[in-house]
Amino acid sequence: MREDEKEILEYLRYCWKKNFYLKKYPLREWEEAYLKRKLLFFTWKNKSFFRLNKDFKGYPMGTFFNERFLVPGYPHIPRIYVLKTGLKRYLKYPFYVEEKIEGYNVRLIKVEDEILAFTRRGYICAFATDRWEDFLPELPRFFEDNPNLIVCAEVAGPENPFVSEYPAYIKEDINFFVFDFMKKGTGKFLNVSEKLKLLERYSLNSPEINGPFDSERDYERIKELLKRYHLEKREGVVFKPDYQGARVKYVTPFSNLEDLRVVFPYLGDIDFHFITLRLIRLALNLYEFEEFKEEVYNTLGKALFEQTIQFLKTEKPVHETFKVRFKKESNFFAMLAHFRLAKVNIEIKKTEWRDGYLHIEFSKIYPKATQFWKSKLEGWGEID
Amino acid sequence: MREDEKEILEYLRYCWKKNFYLKKYPLREWEEAYLKRKLLFFTWKNKSFFRLNKDFKGYPMGTFFNERFLVPGYPHIPRIYVLKTGLKRYLKYPFYVEEKIEGYNVRLIKVEDEILAFTRRGYICAFATDRWEDFLPELPRFFEDNPNLIVCAEVAGPENPFVSEYPAYIKEDINFFVFDFMKKGTGKFLNVSEKLKLLERYSLNSPEINGPFDSERDYERIKELLKRYHLEKREGVVFKPDYQGARVKYVTPFSNLEDLRVVFPYLGDIDFHFITLRLIRLALNLYEFEEFKEEVYNTLGKALFEQTIQFLKTEKPVHETFKVRFKKESNFFAMLAHFRLAKVNIEIKKTEWRDGYLHIEFSKIYPKATQFWKSKLEGWGEID
Repeated sequence: MREDEKEILEYLRYCWKKNFYLKKYPLREWEEAYLKRKLLFFTWKNKSFFRLNKDFKGYPMGTFFNERFLVPGYPHIPRIYVLKTGLKRYLKYPFYVEEKIEGYNVRLIKVEDEILAFTRRGYICAFATDRWEDFLPELPRFFEDNPNLIVCAEVAGPENPFVSEYPAYIKEDINFFVFDFMKKGTGKFLNVSEKLKLLERYSLNSPEINGPFDSERDYERIKELLKRYHLEKREGVVFKPDYQGARVKYVTPFSNLEDLRVVFPYLGDIDFHFITLRLIRLALNLYEFEEFKEEVYNTLGKALFEQTIQFLKTEKPVHETFKVRFKKESNFFAMLAHFRLAKVNIEIKKTEWRDGYLHIEFSKIYPKATQFWKSKLEGWGEID
Repeated sequence: MREDEKEILEYLRYCWKKNFYLKKYPLREWEEAYLKRKLLFFTWKNKSFFRLNKDFKGYPMGTFFNERFLVPGYPHIPRIYVLKTGLKRYLKYPFYVEEKIEGYNVRLIKVEDEILAFTRRGYICAFATDRWEDFLPELPRFFEDNPNLIVCAEVAGPENPFVSEYPAYIKEDINFFVFDFMKKGTGKFLNVSEKLKLLERYSLNSPEINGPFDSERDYERIKELLKRYHLEKREGVVFKPDYQGARVKYVTPFSNLEDLRVVFPYLGDIDFHFITLRLIRLALNLYEFEEFKEEVYNTLGKALFEQTIQFLKTEKPVHETFKVRFKKESNFFAMLAHFRLAKVNIEIKKTEWRDGYLHIEFSKIYPKATQFWKSKLEGWGEID
């Protein structure tokens, strides 16, 4: 064992002794998880953490902790494919319908002297950590009053470093949309009505929230809401009960079409399942929303292929261009370090200080997708 | 070990001693393959055979043999996605372009007193065995003159027991399309010009064969041929050199659209990859044949979803109806036995003797596809 590994295991033991939530499982099992690389050690400036990059016992992938706290991974929300039957199966009065925003999920937590944003996988997101104060200025007061809560938010907009889709109503930069308050340690969520109070009290921007609803009585209203979301090019909704109970999600035909349009050129880097799953969702969208059949029938082919064909003609490597703006250069460097660690291949196109922000333009290069299409274009045969 | 297994191993040893092509590998390895169920024993009336249901050493899946002969599995032909570059890469003058027929592949061989048809997997196909003499009446004379050849043919048409797609120009029943002569033992194919002679001499029906061509000089002519095939709703082509060399295949946009249309309702029984692969082929079809873009853009959505949506509304189990006609009832029973063995769930709808043929209508039931859609229709959520 290397010297630094011994030190890390020493720190893991220290965390286990101090942190009640780790003691749920014997130290030996945590140590084993570390040695099997399910549990990873990482640092941020002078702070140290562990994160789970696989599910481990009761804790999901993305859980992170140190000696003082543990934040469980944000749980996967099951998707329903048919509202009519799905709502009745999972929800009863009162539940709320929250807009599901196309962006990426962060968990914001105050660690000693600073508020940090962690990604779904439990990495620190240097970008969201840099920018939350522009959009959630009352967050420091929130954490002073609620030290045991974690703020779950979607970061979305045309200028984010991870996701090229974003809500049509965000015209520039990004925004933060707080959608949950999670309790440290247990990972339990506040009920919607408590959440609404806190959102208001601290002026926290949130997704559109409608309700309370009943699954039988309000089916048509919910359907109308989804129709509007489709027409407004919104991603979908998450159904959240105002009691401790199951949540489910549902996405619009628009979102499925858009995913297909955006992702098709990246085959080779993305899984084949990604495509088929969205087609299945679309088929079931149309089963319930017959009014969108003509539109989907007329646009699907173009959505899938047009961008790919245009792109293939350029004979360039498969890449995606992102713009972001940072307040602090050190956070930009931290993002670059993250990309290196995560083996994301990027190329900086432009950096410019303007109006107090460091504006960056960079490309992600996808070598596998490039090779995937290139070998076909070059006439190589495959047994598929 | 069971008594019958001992006898089978005894028979395997006997085959190995008598059959030169088995001796390529030590007996011990063949025995091991049998014990690992890569090599399976089967019988047809009083005849015994082995078949490989996995690749084994140099022999592909679908190879079958007994003490007197060995027939290698029909090899997979690599697919090219772009004609312009693919033809140059794999072929030189002279090569032929053969129509690829939508049906299923059998290998016909004379075994002692009878001509038997074996499927791609090396099963005996009771249906093709029953029907070849209606379509290839000179086959007995062919095998008398050419005892060391195997006849490779596509069985295609609206009344076959396996494939629901078929060429538009076959209006009823089926036909046999001889596309290769393979040598026993080595599995080598006759060159196209030798094949053409034998096809003519024994009046064997074949796919359309055009050529000889050159990959550079005739690119436009080949493209025109594929355009015509697309418009005539044909599946595609196989490029075969008139020398011992590589073969490649290419399919029309029509065929990819049709596969998607036919197969989408069977998701759950068919792999998700099936869908994405055909979309990739379509994208590259359109990259080269821009003239079909509008058509594909306008029809893809409907092709994918319409049948599935209509079918979901019926709330019936996922099934597919087949019609076939047999000359001998015993062959029909043999087909039923095959379906039992292969765990295909079928339901006989109708049996009727008419004009000397036993006309059968039966359904294949797909329990996995049924469950796949049913759980979604019933509103069950999934983490996908």
